[in-house]
Amino acid sequence: ATKKDIVVIPGDGVGTEVMDAALAVLDVVQNKYNYDFTYHQALAGGIATDTVGVPLPDETLDKAKKADAILFGAVGGPKWDNHPPHLRPEQALLGLRKALGLFSNLRPIVLFSGLEDSSSLKAEVIQGVDFVVVRELTGGIYFGEKQRQKDNNGYEYASDVLLYHEHEIERIVRLAFQMAQNRKKQLTSVDKANVLESSRLWRAVVDRVKTDYPDVTVEHMLVDNCAMQLVRRPASFDVIVTENMFGDILSDEAAILTGSIGMLPSASLGEGTLGFYEPVHGSAPDIAGLGIANPTAMILSMAMMLRHSFQDEKAASDVEKAVEKVVHMGYRTQDTKVDSDKTLTTMQFAEKVASL
Amino acid sequence: ATKKDIVVIPGDGVGTEVMDAALAVLDVVQNKYNYDFTYHQALAGGIATDTVGVPLPDETLDKAKKADAILFGAVGGPKWDNHPPHLRPEQALLGLRKALGLFSNLRPIVLFSGLEDSSSLKAEVIQGVDFVVVRELTGGIYFGEKQRQKDNNGYEYASDVLLYHEHEIERIVRLAFQMAQNRKKQLTSVDKANVLESSRLWRAVVDRVKTDYPDVTVEHMLVDNCAMQLVRRPASFDVIVTENMFGDILSDEAAILTGSIGMLPSASLGEGTLGFYEPVHGSAPDIAGLGIANPTAMILSMAMMLRHSFQDEKAASDVEKAVEKVVHMGYRTQDTKVDSDKTLTTMQFAEKVASL
Ligand SMILES: CC(C)[C@H](C(=O)O)[C@@H](O)C(=O)O
Ligand SMILES: CC(C)[C@H](C(=O)O)[C@@H](O)C(=O)O
Repeated sequence: ATKKDIVVIPGDGVGTEVMDAALAVLDVVQNKYNYDFTYHQALAGGIATDTVGVPLPDETLDKAKKADAILFGAVGGPKWDNHPPHLRPEQALLGLRKALGLFSNLRPIVLFSGLEDSSSLKAEVIQGVDFVVVRELTGGIYFGEKQRQKDNNGYEYASDVLLYHEHEIERIVRLAFQMAQNRKKQLTSVDKANVLESSRLWRAVVDRVKTDYPDVTVEHMLVDNCAMQLVRRPASFDVIVTENMFGDILSDEAAILTGSIGMLPSASLGEGTLGFYEPVHGSAPDIAGLGIANPTAMILSMAMMLRHSFQDEKAASDVEKAVEKVVHMGYRTQDTKVDSDKTLTTMQFAEKVASL
Repeated sequence: ATKKDIVVIPGDGVGTEVMDAALAVLDVVQNKYNYDFTYHQALAGGIATDTVGVPLPDETLDKAKKADAILFGAVGGPKWDNHPPHLRPEQALLGLRKALGLFSNLRPIVLFSGLEDSSSLKAEVIQGVDFVVVRELTGGIYFGEKQRQKDNNGYEYASDVLLYHEHEIERIVRLAFQMAQNRKKQLTSVDKANVLESSRLWRAVVDRVKTDYPDVTVEHMLVDNCAMQLVRRPASFDVIVTENMFGDILSDEAAILTGSIGMLPSASLGEGTLGFYEPVHGSAPDIAGLGIANPTAMILSMAMMLRHSFQDEKAASDVEKAVEKVVHMGYRTQDTKVDSDKTLTTMQFAEKVASL
C-alpha cells in the first residue's frame, strides 16, 4: 500500500462537518486504491486562536511542511471578525500559502448538470461552462510592504505595494500554459497593462514564455474587460491566469456564475507535489453544526489532492464521477434541494458518493 | 439665457458620431431651457497623437480647465495599441482626471424596460436593478509610484504603490453618503480590509464619517464578495463606493449585468461643478463611421452634465425621460434591435429623442 501523510485542518463553522464527510469518502478510496493514509489533525483559524492564541500555530505549520497533502475545511466567523488583523482567522490561510510556497491556486469552474436553475445566468449563457482560474497566490499586493502613518497635519495615510519578480510570474504562467495544453489550448492572461507597471512586466513575461507552447492560443485581456466577459460569455474561457488580487476577485465572480458555489473545489500548489485542498465556500456559521452543509466542494477538493499530490488520475476521476452521478440521480443537500425526498444530510450525501 | 462653456472632445472611433448625436439633442435643450452654450472642440486620444503627437495636448487641457463642463466621446483603437504607455490614448483620460481633480466617477446602472432580453442574467435577477457605483478616480494604485528594475541576477521586477490619504477617502465617501441620502439610503463600501492596509484606513474613515449620515445604512463588503453579489443579487444594491482599481473592475462588471452597456452614462466630478461626461462604452472601432452606433450613453451622459454641472434637474430628467420613451416605443439602434422596422441610425435615434 502507498503510504501518504495527510494533514487534516477542519477549521471553523461547517469545516468540521464537510471534512468528516470527505474523509468518509477518502477511507473508501484508501481501500479501493490500496493506500495507507495517516491523518494528522491540526488546528487553524478561529478555533486555533481560541485554543492556543494564534490563528496559525507553529505546530500546524510544522505538520503541514512534512505532509504529502493538506485538506483544509474553512476558517472564520463573526466571533473573530473584530480581532486585530494578525489574529484574524484568514491569517492562517495567508501564512500557510506563504510558508509552504503555494504559489498557484487552481479553481475549476464547471456547470453541474441538474443545477442550471440555481444560476443567476440564463441557461443558454452558462451552457457548457468549463474553465479554470489559475491565480498567483504568494506575490503581489497581498505580501508587499504595508504602511500606515500620519502626515505633518496629523492625517493618516496608508499604502500597499504590488510587486512582482519575473520568476514569480514565469512559474505561474508556465503552469497555466501546461494546463491549457491538457485542455482546450486556450489561455487568457489577465492584467491591467494600460495602467500598472507590474502588469506590463506580467504581459512581457507571457509574451516571452508563449513561444515554448506554440500549440496554445494566448490572449491578453484587461481585468475590467474580463470582469465583463465572465458574465457575458463564460463558456468561451478555457484557462485564465492572473495575479493574486485580480485572481481573488475574478475567481469569486467566476465561482458564482454557475450557481453551484457550494460545490466548487480548489487546489493550491507549489513547486513539488505538496498541495493544499480547500472548498471555495466559506465557514457558513449560520448553518454550522446542523449537519446539512453541502460536502461536495470538500469531496471534490479531496479528489484534486488525489490528482495533483498523489498523481492518481484514476482515483481522482472516479471520485468526481461518483459525485456527478449522485447529483444526477437527484440527491441534494439542503442548499440545492429540488425534491425533498432526496434531500440528504452532509454525511448521507458523502455515504452515497462513497457507495458508488 | 444662461451662458455655459462646454468643451467637446469626440475622440476616436464612434466617439464622433455619438457626440454629434448628443449635441443635436443638446441644441434642443439649449432653446427649450434658455441656455447659451458655446461648444469648444478639442482633441484627445489617438486622433490627438496622430495630429499633434500626444494623446492629451496642452491646448485641450487648458480649454478643459476653463470650461463649465466637458463632453467626452471615446478614445482608443487597434491603431494605437502598440504605442508606448505614455503615448497611448487612455493617457488622455488619466491625465484629464488628475489635472482637473476629478476624484469621483459616478456610474448609474439601470435596467431599461424593453431590454431585459439582452442581459445574460435571468429576468427575475435583474428585475428592479437601480444602483450607482461611486468610484474614487484620482488616487490609489493608478497614480502611485511605479518602478521597473533589474535585480543582481539580471531579472526584472516591477511594482506599483496603492496609496490613499485620509482626505482622499473622506471626500469620496461623503459624496457617496450624500447620494445615498437622495436614494434608497443604503451604502455599500467595498474594500479588502482583511488584507490591505489602505483598505483598513478606508474602512476606518467610513466608520468615522457615517455618524454624520445617521439616516443611511452602511455595510462593508469585501471586494471578492461584492464581485459575487453583483451577479447573485444586483437588485439589492443602492450606492456602492470603492477605491479606484476595485471601482474599475466592479463598475465594468456592473455595467454588463443589465445587458445595455451601450446605454450607460458616466460622470466624473471634482470639488466644484466642473464635470466630465463620458459613455461607459468604448470607441468600438469595428463599427466606427457607419452611423449605426447607439448614442444613448452619450445622450444620457449629457443629461448628467445638465444635472451635476448645471444643476438643472428638470432639463436632465426631461432628457432621460425622452430616451426612456423612445426605447419604450421600440426604437433601437443596430446593437439592440428587436424589430427591424424601428431600427434607426445614430442620428435618427437622437432626433427622435430631441423631438420629444
Ligand atoms: C480570506 C482571504 C484572505 C482570501 C484571499 O483573499 O486570498 C480568500 O478571499 C480567498 O480567496 O482564498
Ligand atoms: C482606459 C482606462 C485607463 C480606464 C481606467 O482603467 O480607469 C477605463 O478602463 C475606465 O474605467 O475609464
